[in-house]
Amino acid sequence: MEQEKGILFVLSGPSGVGKGTVRQAIMEENNIQLHYSISVTTRKPREEEQEGVDYFFKTKQQFEEMIENKELLEWAKYVGNYYGTPVAYVEETLNQGNDVLLEIEVQGALQVKEHFPEAVFIFLMPPSLSELKTRITTRGTEAEHLINNRMTVAKEEIQLMDHYDYVVENDKIQLACDRIRAIVSAEHCRKDRLYEKYKQMLEVE
Amino acid sequence: MEQEKGILFVLSGPSGVGKGTVRQAIMEENNIQLHYSISVTTRKPREEEQEGVDYFFKTKQQFEEMIENKELLEWAKYVGNYYGTPVAYVEETLNQGNDVLLEIEVQGALQVKEHFPEAVFIFLMPPSLSELKTRITTRGTEAEHLINNRMTVAKEEIQLMDHYDYVVENDKIQLACDRIRAIVSAEHCRKDRLYEKYKQMLEVE
Repeated sequence: MEQEKGILFVLSGPSGVGKGTVRQAIMEENNIQLHYSISVTTRKPREEEQEGVDYFFKTKQQFEEMIENKELLEWAKYVGNYYGTPVAYVEETLNQGNDVLLEIEVQGALQVKEHFPEAVFIFLMPPSLSELKTRITTRGTEAEHLINNRMTVAKEEIQLMDHYDYVVENDKIQLACDRIRAIVSAEHCRKDRLYEKYKQMLEVE
Repeated sequence: MEQEKGILFVLSGPSGVGKGTVRQAIMEENNIQLHYSISVTTRKPREEEQEGVDYFFKTKQQFEEMIENKELLEWAKYVGNYYGTPVAYVEETLNQGNDVLLEIEVQGALQVKEHFPEAVFIFLMPPSLSELKTRITTRGTEAEHLINNRMTVAKEEIQLMDHYDYVVENDKIQLACDRIRAIVSAEHCRKDRLYEKYKQMLEVE
C-alpha cells in the first residue's frame, strides 16, 4: 500500500498572541507526534532563543539568496525583518508519513495555503484585544511606536481568520495546547483523509 | 449576546461494531460535557439494559403513534425492529447551549443529516470485516442467518461512510473514546462556529 502522508499543521495568529510559547509547550509534550519545522529569520535572537532550535538566524543577504534559489515554502517581511520556512524539511517529513508543525506569521500562512490547501490552519487568538496589547507591552522588547504598529497589524490579521480551519483561544497555555492536541488527533479521523483506506478494505476482504 | 447553541454529535456505524459500549464509556467519563439522547426502540432489552437509561422500550403500536405525531427526529426499521430519536429532547438541549450525543443506526443518521446538516457525523469502524463478524458472533444473541444478514447490511452501511465527517476505528474502546473526545473538543474550535463571535469582538473593541 502507498505510504500515507503526514499532515501539515500551520499555527499562526497575530504578533504577541504567544505562538512561540504555545508551540514550545506543545513540542515538549510526550504524547504528541509532531515534527517542528524551524523557521529562518533575519531578526535578532531574543535572550532565550537558540540557533537551530528556535530559528535559523540569517543575514539579510543570506535570506535573499534563499528566496532567489526557491528554498522557501513561504516568507514574509514583518516589522522590518524577514521570516521564512525552508521547503525541503517540510516535504521530506510529510512524505515519510510524519506530521509537521509550522509556527509562522499570518502573511506566510496564506502562502502555505496556496501550496498545501490540504494543510490544517490554526489561528491562535488572544482572549481580547486589550489583553493582546498588555502582552505586547509587557514583553518589553518593543518601543511604543512599534507596539502601536503591531496592534494595527494584529487587527488586520484577525480579519484574515476566515481563511483558517480552527480558532484556538490562548487564554491559558495549557488549555491552548490541549485544544491543539485535540485538533491534531481529530484531523487524523477526518473521513476525507481515510476514505480511500477503507474503500480498499472493502475491496480486499 | 445570543445564546450559543450546542453541537449535535451523531455516533453511528455498522451493527456489532460496539456503538453502545463506546457510547457508554464516553458518557461515564467526567471530563466530557455531552448530553446523551436516549433512543426509543421496539426491540427486546438485552440482559444488562435498563428502561430510560439505554433505551425507552415501546410496543410497535406505541412507536407507530410517535411516528404519526411527528415526535421523532429520525427512525428506522432495522432487522425487524423500530429504532428512533425523540425530537424534543434534542432541540431543547441544543437550544440551552449544551452538546447532544446520539447513538443511532446508519439509516437514521442520514435522516438526521437532512434536518441538522451542521451536526457532526462520526462513523465507528471495526478494525476489519472479519473482526466485525467475530464480534457479532460472540455477542451470542443472534442466530446464524441473522448474523449473515447483519454482515450483508454492515457492508452496505460501510459504503455510506462518505456521508460522515469522521471515521473512528474501534480497535480498543479507550482509544475510540479518546478519539471521540478529541473530535468534540476540536469541533468547538472550528472557525465556522466561531467566526461571528470574533467578528463581534473586533467591532466592539
